[in-house]
Amino acid sequence: MENNNNNKHLNILLFSGDYDKCLAALILVNGARQMGLTVTVFCAFWGLFLLRDVDKISMEDKNIYEKMFSSITPSEAEKLPLSKMNLAGIGKNMLLTMMDENDTPHLQDFLQGARNKGVRFCACKLSLEIMGFKSEELLEGIEVIDVQAYLQDALNSNIQLFI
Amino acid sequence: MENNNNNKHLNILLFSGDYDKCLAALILVNGARQMGLTVTVFCAFWGLFLLRDVDKISMEDKNIYEKMFSSITPSEAEKLPLSKMNLAGIGKNMLLTMMDENDTPHLQDFLQGARNKGVRFCACKLSLEIMGFKSEELLEGIEVIDVQAYLQDALNSNIQLFI
Amino acid sequence: MENNNNNKHLNILLFSGDYDKCLAALILVNGARQMGLTVTVFCAFWGLFLLRDVDKISMEDKNIYEKMFSSITPSEAEKLPLSKMNLAGIGKNMLLTMMDENDTPHLQDFLQGARNKGVRFCACKLSLEIMGFKSEELLEGIEVIDVQAYLQDALNSNIQLFI
Repeated sequence: MENNNNNKHLNILLFSGDYDKCLAALILVNGARQMGLTVTVFCAFWGLFLLRDVDKISMEDKNIYEKMFSSITPSEAEKLPLSKMNLAGIGKNMLLTMMDENDTPHLQDFLQGARNKGVRFCACKLSLEIMGFKSEELLEGIEVIDVQAYLQDALNSNIQLFI
Repeated sequence: MENNNNNKHLNILLFSGDYDKCLAALILVNGARQMGLTVTVFCAFWGLFLLRDVDKISMEDKNIYEKMFSSITPSEAEKLPLSKMNLAGIGKNMLLTMMDENDTPHLQDFLQGARNKGVRFCACKLSLEIMGFKSEELLEGIEVIDVQAYLQDALNSNIQLFI
Repeated sequence: MENNNNNKHLNILLFSGDYDKCLAALILVNGARQMGLTVTVFCAFWGLFLLRDVDKISMEDKNIYEKMFSSITPSEAEKLPLSKMNLAGIGKNMLLTMMDENDTPHLQDFLQGARNKGVRFCACKLSLEIMGFKSEELLEGIEVIDVQAYLQDALNSNIQLFI
């Protein structure tokens, strides 16, 4: 299946900050890399939560709204809620247990796997500004790009998905 | 409008298990088949609910979590909730009544229509495993494929959507 | 970056009526037009709420369900709810305040900007019928097209997104 896929390109705009949708996105990009595709993930709005580094979150240089927003939002990938049946975390715990029973890796593992495999993760410049996140609060090696750079990458891609 | 569409291909990754989003997906694939397009629908995560056969759901070979999960989730397409204003079913009943007033078919009818028209429905192998659904619990004729087979189909498509 | 983009085409199916998702869609289409791309936005289901003209909403020729539906749904773009953390409007007000702090325009401004830049906005014929909205209730210059016309436009596009 890997023949002729080396010059193919998958582009994902990750808008969602839901655990299950981020999981779907990361399963896709890991699979795509294994097939030899080039992969870009452009994280915007709630999708930025995937890229926050819990050890680097800072309240410095944030105004009152940005501080409030930062403190009520999930601080790292593994803390993201489920899009359906979250039920104060019961549904998510059930899903995680079922994943463990099947030896399925968790979100954090898929994220690390994707980064190891060379998936390019980018953060949306405008979203960072609106949400008051600093690029220093993100995981190492995340590029900050604008909407037009995302669109140019999408134009050069064979598959574009909005998740 | 049907000229030159016979070698075109629409590929949908159906992640959602919401009634309205599944309805949108099925309206699209029915329209696409009428135009002569080849159509693949890859159902993953909550999208698997569209493909369960209520007469075949079994509790055998399921662990305790899979049994709980199976019993709290919708057993067939027509029981799916609305993504917005579900309000304990009031919003959905209102939508269904409005659809009836306009002689719009229900989800089940669009699903049957799509299957009759030759839309290829596939279930995500990994999602089945995580959720503890057996392939025998699905509607007849559903293929079980993995993420890479989905991606290969998407690479060969003219339109790819994540719904 | 504008070279060779004049014959490129972005096609968005806007299904969502959430403030944040509509904002993401409109930021994309404004950026795309600045790069010289042709842009079509096909609004279906909840996405129709983006195109309602608050001054033209009428209860005439509506049945009882359509009247109820019309009165409980958002009457214009700026009134749309947030997809996450809406918390009776607190989350949205916080987001709007953070946008103001960064001089980011609101949804209505991005919509007007997109219309001024020549983005083609279309309303889904079937969705209008189901929801009981008349084409006269929409903003001026909105085309009403069917699913197959959307698909044909999507086939002729370089990027297709379902939002």
